[in-house]
Amino acid sequence: MSAQSPTVATSSTLIGFTELVELLQQIFVRHGTSPEVAAILAHNCASAERDGAHSHGIFRIPGYLSTLASGWVNGTAVPIVTDVASGFVRVDAANGFAQPALEAARALLVSKARSAGIALLAIHNSHHFAALWPDVEPFAEQGLVALSVVNSMTCVVPHGADRPLFGTNPIAFAAPRADGAPIVFDLATSAIAHGDVQIAARKGERLPPGMGVDSLGQPTQDPKAILEGGALLPFGGHKGSALSMMVELLAAALTGGNFSFEFNWAEHPGARTPWTGQLLIVIDPSKTAGQSFAERSQELVRQMHAAGLRRLPGDRRHRTRAKSQEAGIELEAQDLRQLRELAAG
Amino acid sequence: MSAQSPTVATSSTLIGFTELVELLQQIFVRHGTSPEVAAILAHNCASAERDGAHSHGIFRIPGYLSTLASGWVNGTAVPIVTDVASGFVRVDAANGFAQPALEAARALLVSKARSAGIALLAIHNSHHFAALWPDVEPFAEQGLVALSVVNSMTCVVPHGADRPLFGTNPIAFAAPRADGAPIVFDLATSAIAHGDVQIAARKGERLPPGMGVDSLGQPTQDPKAILEGGALLPFGGHKGSALSMMVELLAAALTGGNFSFEFNWAEHPGARTPWTGQLLIVIDPSKTAGQSFAERSQELVRQMHAAGLRRLPGDRRHRTRAKSQEAGIELEAQDLRQLRELAAG
Repeated sequence: MSAQSPTVATSSTLIGFTELVELLQQIFVRHGTSPEVAAILAHNCASAERDGAHSHGIFRIPGYLSTLASGWVNGTAVPIVTDVASGFVRVDAANGFAQPALEAARALLVSKARSAGIALLAIHNSHHFAALWPDVEPFAEQGLVALSVVNSMTCVVPHGADRPLFGTNPIAFAAPRADGAPIVFDLATSAIAHGDVQIAARKGERLPPGMGVDSLGQPTQDPKAILEGGALLPFGGHKGSALSMMVELLAAALTGGNFSFEFNWAEHPGARTPWTGQLLIVIDPSKTAGQSFAERSQELVRQMHAAGLRRLPGDRRHRTRAKSQEAGIELEAQDLRQLRELAAG
Repeated sequence: MSAQSPTVATSSTLIGFTELVELLQQIFVRHGTSPEVAAILAHNCASAERDGAHSHGIFRIPGYLSTLASGWVNGTAVPIVTDVASGFVRVDAANGFAQPALEAARALLVSKARSAGIALLAIHNSHHFAALWPDVEPFAEQGLVALSVVNSMTCVVPHGADRPLFGTNPIAFAAPRADGAPIVFDLATSAIAHGDVQIAARKGERLPPGMGVDSLGQPTQDPKAILEGGALLPFGGHKGSALSMMVELLAAALTGGNFSFEFNWAEHPGARTPWTGQLLIVIDPSKTAGQSFAERSQELVRQMHAAGLRRLPGDRRHRTRAKSQEAGIELEAQDLRQLRELAAG
């Protein structure tokens, strides 16, 4: 599936969000997932496409399908939720995707966060192949503050090391505010997201300097050299590297999941999904002293704009979402054809 | 107090940790703190000096004393601890320092973390003028995982903005491991810590590029130009900037404390301590599925070394600490004289 290019208007077409979700759901079911898993993955993937987050939209479908075909992930897994303590929920994703594990634990997690003030969800034995912001944004829409980290697969050289070890290990955060959509960010602790390297490779574009190294460990701006035996660098030098290490500790060591370097999919050709763990922390800001959190976060936004910031983290996604909701989601006609074939074939 | 320069051996002298703590404690009491507050600040400051974290060691004493003299901070404040929920503790630091507020809540926080699996400490109405790692390291020494953020004072230009708004807003993390000292890092979300800019200015050294801007918003490598009307930049571009924003939301909006841009010390000449808030999150990893967390974090360390990493975050501090514990803490003779005068005078 090629990346969407909004400038090629002649070959583009529009599709409604619900229709895209249904189409993707059919594709997942036809390729081996349960209807429950399909519904969750389809909603997640269509949301990314709707919001213009193309590297985690329909671009991911071939990877999902080759993974399912390889037997690496269980598309019909039923997550096992354990109520560990008043602020601690554990989910064994049963070698399935992480998003159904989160859905299975969501109500318990929210209830614990509202009661204890803070609650933790530790997901292990899980595969995360999507953007991380869809996991945290819904909590902020319910008035909660949420933080999540997920480790992935060895492709980042720790600062000061010779060889890759960490995953792209993103950190996502969402917080409610009084007069607008939640404040949301989702940042890879690598200098660039793996999906963006793949997109650049497909487009034949060069990367900015400082993003990665080739198979000999030498700096390169060629996305193909990074993908073929090379590796990424952490963002922000030793600081981004320390945060990536923290993600390994929180998402793997603290959940009982694999580190990014621990799983071996050699016997599953076509496998693309990292088999690791994910951590979520959800906080109820109504426990805070003083003025309401949403009023306070609104004040921070107001001051950020006054300091000359035109775009907040998440703004572009929310603008694209509004446009998609009004006019439909723009897809390349060829991509839509391929999706329909996958749903039918 | 000048920064310690380890190369000027002719003027250096050695002091034991306990003796340095007692000396600093006398200084604090003589300049307006209660004995309880003095003991906590002295231990914190001496620990930084012992570990070679010079920008937060005795270098900070003049700032503490001018702040106390200005009436900006209450050196005899008694923190008010509120048990909010099974995972949520709130402390009003009563316009005192943040460290005594943490001490007052520590036992309750640890007990909640062990019982609920995770617990949050929200400190507000507090002044934090020290390194952040001493706040998290002790939890890891007790087998817990700890994360802390504190906002400070407007001196960082958000990525894409024209004017400074955020503080240096550090993030500190500590985790236990089986066969060694805890894994600990403490990173400013600014490209450089404010204390390191001050030290460079005193030494007359230039900074690397990308650290800050002058009073006209132009890039500069002159630390004095940054301190005199200029500002710092976030580390890692928009990603570090997003994390700095998150610190404002967690340390201020979520605690009931001031944002970095909200307090006004104009009527307190000599005031140096940001009057904001601080958040701590403490997790009990014994609630995790599978192998013990400390064994797993040890495995990560082993693999980081195998990937060619020679130094872990915190390693240099721990080595300096071991050296200080054996031979004593090295101070410039002139600095020690000044400390003794401050304690007596």
